[in-house]
Amino acid sequence: MALLLPLLVRAAGGLRAAGQGGGGSSSSSSSSSSSAMEELATEKEAEESHRQDSVSLLTFILLLTLTILTIWLFKHRRVRFLHETGLAMIYGLIVGVILRYGTPSTSGHDKPFSCSQEDRPFTTLLVNVSGKFFEYTLKGEISPGKIHNVEQNDMLRKVTFDPEVFFNILLPPIIFHAGYSLKKRHFFRNLGSILAYAFLGTAVSCFIIGNLMYGVVKLMKLVGQLSDKFYYTDCLLFGAIISATDPVTVLAIFNELHADVDLYALLFGESVLNDAVAIVLSSSIVAYQPTGENTHAFDAAAFFKSVGVFLGIFSGSFMMGAVTGVVTALVTKFTKLHCFPLLETALFFLMSWSTFLLAEACGFTGVVAVLFCGITQAHYTYNNLSVESRSRTKQLFEVLHFLAENFIFSYMGLALFTFQKHIFSPVFIIGAFIAIFLGRAAHVYPLSFLLNLGRRHKISWNFQHMMMFSGLRGAMAFALAIRDTATYSHQMMFSTTLLIVFFTVWIVGGGTTPMLSWLNIRVGVDPDQDPPPTNDSFQVLQGDGLDSERKNRTKQESAWLFRLWYSFDHNYLKPILTHSGPPLTTTLPSWCGLIARCLTSPQVYDNQEQLREEDSDFILNDGDLTVTYGDTTITANGSSGPHTATTSLDGRRTKSSSEEALERDLGAAEQEVTSRGTRLVFPLEDNA
Amino acid sequence: MALLLPLLVRAAGGLRAAGQGGGGSSSSSSSSSSSAMEELATEKEAEESHRQDSVSLLTFILLLTLTILTIWLFKHRRVRFLHETGLAMIYGLIVGVILRYGTPSTSGHDKPFSCSQEDRPFTTLLVNVSGKFFEYTLKGEISPGKIHNVEQNDMLRKVTFDPEVFFNILLPPIIFHAGYSLKKRHFFRNLGSILAYAFLGTAVSCFIIGNLMYGVVKLMKLVGQLSDKFYYTDCLLFGAIISATDPVTVLAIFNELHADVDLYALLFGESVLNDAVAIVLSSSIVAYQPTGENTHAFDAAAFFKSVGVFLGIFSGSFMMGAVTGVVTALVTKFTKLHCFPLLETALFFLMSWSTFLLAEACGFTGVVAVLFCGITQAHYTYNNLSVESRSRTKQLFEVLHFLAENFIFSYMGLALFTFQKHIFSPVFIIGAFIAIFLGRAAHVYPLSFLLNLGRRHKISWNFQHMMMFSGLRGAMAFALAIRDTATYSHQMMFSTTLLIVFFTVWIVGGGTTPMLSWLNIRVGVDPDQDPPPTNDSFQVLQGDGLDSERKNRTKQESAWLFRLWYSFDHNYLKPILTHSGPPLTTTLPSWCGLIARCLTSPQVYDNQEQLREEDSDFILNDGDLTVTYGDTTITANGSSGPHTATTSLDGRRTKSSSEEALERDLGAAEQEVTSRGTRLVFPLEDNA
Repeated sequence: MALLLPLLVRAAGGLRAAGQGGGGSSSSSSSSSSSAMEELATEKEAEESHRQDSVSLLTFILLLTLTILTIWLFKHRRVRFLHETGLAMIYGLIVGVILRYGTPSTSGHDKPFSCSQEDRPFTTLLVNVSGKFFEYTLKGEISPGKIHNVEQNDMLRKVTFDPEVFFNILLPPIIFHAGYSLKKRHFFRNLGSILAYAFLGTAVSCFIIGNLMYGVVKLMKLVGQLSDKFYYTDCLLFGAIISATDPVTVLAIFNELHADVDLYALLFGESVLNDAVAIVLSSSIVAYQPTGENTHAFDAAAFFKSVGVFLGIFSGSFMMGAVTGVVTALVTKFTKLHCFPLLETALFFLMSWSTFLLAEACGFTGVVAVLFCGITQAHYTYNNLSVESRSRTKQLFEVLHFLAENFIFSYMGLALFTFQKHIFSPVFIIGAFIAIFLGRAAHVYPLSFLLNLGRRHKISWNFQHMMMFSGLRGAMAFALAIRDTATYSHQMMFSTTLLIVFFTVWIVGGGTTPMLSWLNIRVGVDPDQDPPPTNDSFQVLQGDGLDSERKNRTKQESAWLFRLWYSFDHNYLKPILTHSGPPLTTTLPSWCGLIARCLTSPQVYDNQEQLREEDSDFILNDGDLTVTYGDTTITANGSSGPHTATTSLDGRRTKSSSEEALERDLGAAEQEVTSRGTRLVFPLEDNA
Repeated sequence: MALLLPLLVRAAGGLRAAGQGGGGSSSSSSSSSSSAMEELATEKEAEESHRQDSVSLLTFILLLTLTILTIWLFKHRRVRFLHETGLAMIYGLIVGVILRYGTPSTSGHDKPFSCSQEDRPFTTLLVNVSGKFFEYTLKGEISPGKIHNVEQNDMLRKVTFDPEVFFNILLPPIIFHAGYSLKKRHFFRNLGSILAYAFLGTAVSCFIIGNLMYGVVKLMKLVGQLSDKFYYTDCLLFGAIISATDPVTVLAIFNELHADVDLYALLFGESVLNDAVAIVLSSSIVAYQPTGENTHAFDAAAFFKSVGVFLGIFSGSFMMGAVTGVVTALVTKFTKLHCFPLLETALFFLMSWSTFLLAEACGFTGVVAVLFCGITQAHYTYNNLSVESRSRTKQLFEVLHFLAENFIFSYMGLALFTFQKHIFSPVFIIGAFIAIFLGRAAHVYPLSFLLNLGRRHKISWNFQHMMMFSGLRGAMAFALAIRDTATYSHQMMFSTTLLIVFFTVWIVGGGTTPMLSWLNIRVGVDPDQDPPPTNDSFQVLQGDGLDSERKNRTKQESAWLFRLWYSFDHNYLKPILTHSGPPLTTTLPSWCGLIARCLTSPQVYDNQEQLREEDSDFILNDGDLTVTYGDTTITANGSSGPHTATTSLDGRRTKSSSEEALERDLGAAEQEVTSRGTRLVFPLEDNA
């Protein structure tokens, strides 16, 4: 409890507790009027501090409110050159400038007090002040160079908060939401490619950027631009930090325009998983501590230890998340909790949160565990929830995600001016921009080439260019960079990361719509209503009723990884964890009869026919649909107003013709105007 | 920011930031291997602490999960002698016992460090430990007697958190939800009585309990049971703390059984408002600091100052909450934000939260402001929201409320064993039980008598007895008591409050159903579908179509306070703040023509006819309805399964006959079995 709560208190409670304590003891201690006056002064000060705290949190809330209203205005007027995250950053920047240059420096009364102590720091300190005892808690180490910074502008200090917030409070809902809202069908269909991009790609990108930056650093040392140490491991860390792509803007626009589902799945899957890879990669690089005196040189033992750490943390976190998801699925399956949506939602929320804590308690990465928990929950638990809980959980996490994301982006804007130790080195910054460009290119094109050798459904050139273009950096890169800003090299890395995030969010975010148009990527496709296309261009699906045939075809023609997973999932996991799928009595060998009968939900037999149509892989996620539609007012052809249910029904009816068109000529999107796959005509005309 | 975030971090991040900082500086500082080892040790310790933090938070989450599952089991099996809050307390108790007696005392490494300092404490402390600097922040004053307590069982310390958490994190969602889900019609119809109970009643109860307890304290001093000071102001404070009734259990059961709506409105309105009154009352009593040497004796100037503080804080908080609600209503009215439910929900959430911060920043009481904000939001903003946002906001706050409430109750159970400074004095405890009984009686019966003089629709004896019985104490009393446990008297008050909460929640919570049956209070009434009854017992409403007549009658026959408010609200506030009500052009004088035209929503003219039927006072709150029904499986007559929509439609159809019955003979509830007003037959038979 010590972790969340005493602190949360001071959160909104500031030092009032101290003040109150003082007030309380004033009634018990003897009434020497001078000490009473003193206490009153302390209490006033505590109250003042509490008030300042409230004001600084209010600043952020007003910032978010302003952002929401402007987003609305932009959506209303169909402005799409600036995304809401870019907007949040701009507002953050403005407030940062005001705080930086507009508020008087009010330091002074927080005089630091130095006293020598032996050995190592205690976590609790008791200080005797004229007979009264005060308790202090350890906040952290301060590098000697920063001591004078402790005496700073109060307001600036108040709005600059501990980076761990990002990891522990703001990122989990964002990442969970990403996992929970993963479009499962397209994700699993492209699973092999996504894994390749996320693991191999991120490693390649990290390594290339790290090495290029090491060259840049060498160059800087040569020119005399470097004033402190900058090791090879620091460069690699920078590579890991900056390899976490976060195409939140791109995906938002894809979602809005209903761009191609496979491209969406590739980009989304890659960005979600590569966040996890980047976190674990950076932890492993930090863990790379060569023994002996040759620090920061290559050491094979330490390297393999780092690789081991990577694999251990990743698989451990993955397991942790999957296990919590499975437990939740079992609980929701075997209780009749769905009669009480409130209880169900609360349980779902608590279990998902406990994943994070469980992983942290076991020394794994909570954020990664939360991601896989989200995926498991969406794949299994979601099917067991009542209709009301489905929309409740979706909406709950959507709101949390929205608030957390915009908070991070406005904080990023703020940080440019309120962070006190920026080091902007032009050479390093230019080098970094070139390196991320090359790193992204070395990640996308060779891997796509290799993947295309094995894929029937090739990743076309325009998709590859779009993936190349979409490699913008966002919340995760920032969170990783701000995690440790103690040394010169880390400060420089942080400042550079901040600039890269700004640049990519604004430029790439704004350029997505023209880029889609230029690359002839079709838009206006409804991702949820799309049947799985056949992978052979010459086979054409006929009608909607051929469910079993369709399923067979999907099984035959999908990637082997997907096929393997699909049959295992469909025959065993789904029936065990949810009310759907075939009865276990038919899929398990006969000697498991009793267990099979216990585990199979009685509803399976009743629903077997009905459920065949809405098997996970074809599930239409109606809850998701309304959310998506609720968020969407603009379609590519400029028709106004939110999509209605009838549109989506239309989409369902016309989907096969739309898919045929895709299969016939994927590049010539112009021909698709007949169905819902409309070509984007740019610039959009505002016909409001 | 300093308030919420650096702390939140440590929340889930523990001291890792410090550890990381150490790790970072290791790469920059010269590599003396001894210092590296030392850093490693510190890092390990920080990690260990972080892990412990996660574990202790996990404890609470598992506790809540367990509670949810057991609640489900209870609801499923229709066990009603123990409410979920009582259950949460029991689980908390069990875990408390385990923590207290089951875990080894692992103190020691957090040795307190004493050093003398002049004058008064600084809020930040820099400590030099063998050349490295560590920052400490002030946590609060410790009374000299408690110094040895700092060295305690680590686990116990971790699960014991700062009381301000209750005020700043857990209470706001509970209170906001209370305000937001207030059944407006019945609330406003009984506004006068509710205000009387809440303000006068709480003050009377506080004064009587305070004086009785002063007598008890005098007696204890006489007998020699008192070992430290216990002032008159402490007794009054105890009166204020314990006067905050919280019939959460009773209301949950009322809701489940659909008990009489007027009784529900009286109890709910009273308990919600008296929380606010109790908070402000206790603040005022703390602010009662007589000047000069005669501390803790009566001082007229200080008394009137306290009264002034009470009025100032209360009205200020009220204004603050109302203003934020009004601003939100205006924003949601004049933008087309309802096209984007996510934005709307986020805005709603942020504005409601900012109320709390705004009030705290201005020195008012955030919790009280949040209550009135909730009422205003429900009354105005709710009407402007899109259908989706209505259910989203309701559900969001419902989940938050549920989690916070159960957390508080399980923490209460825990606190009985983990709180270190309990002082259980049998005399004081017995005295307190008698005092709260007498205080409640002196509050309910005389006030009801006075109110009945003015009310046409009398508060019957069985209602009065039920109100008397329902005076159980819950979260608010606990939160107020734990706020300051620095002195002997406060510790004794805290322990006693805890016992009173346990006793009343278990006994009163469990006894509600038999009590309802015994007092012949009718159940099975649908609170939402009930038309406003006529206040004259001999007038009978005929049919549903007579809306304007019904409205006129309501106006004529309601209390004057309600009538005054109603016409002002209906003619001016509603049209200004929402899309409903009559056009301002007809209600405002003609010289305000331009303003009236600007402020009137164009929809008003279109919807005028339609809206006449669903005016605020008669609004049927469908969103609310589903929530209520989703939560309800048990009706008084023992039919199983949740109510369906058809039932509520039935309710609408039969309501007038049900109301007629109420009007004909309010006491003879037995006659109502014809319609939905079924008499509760106790004990219930489980026909599952």
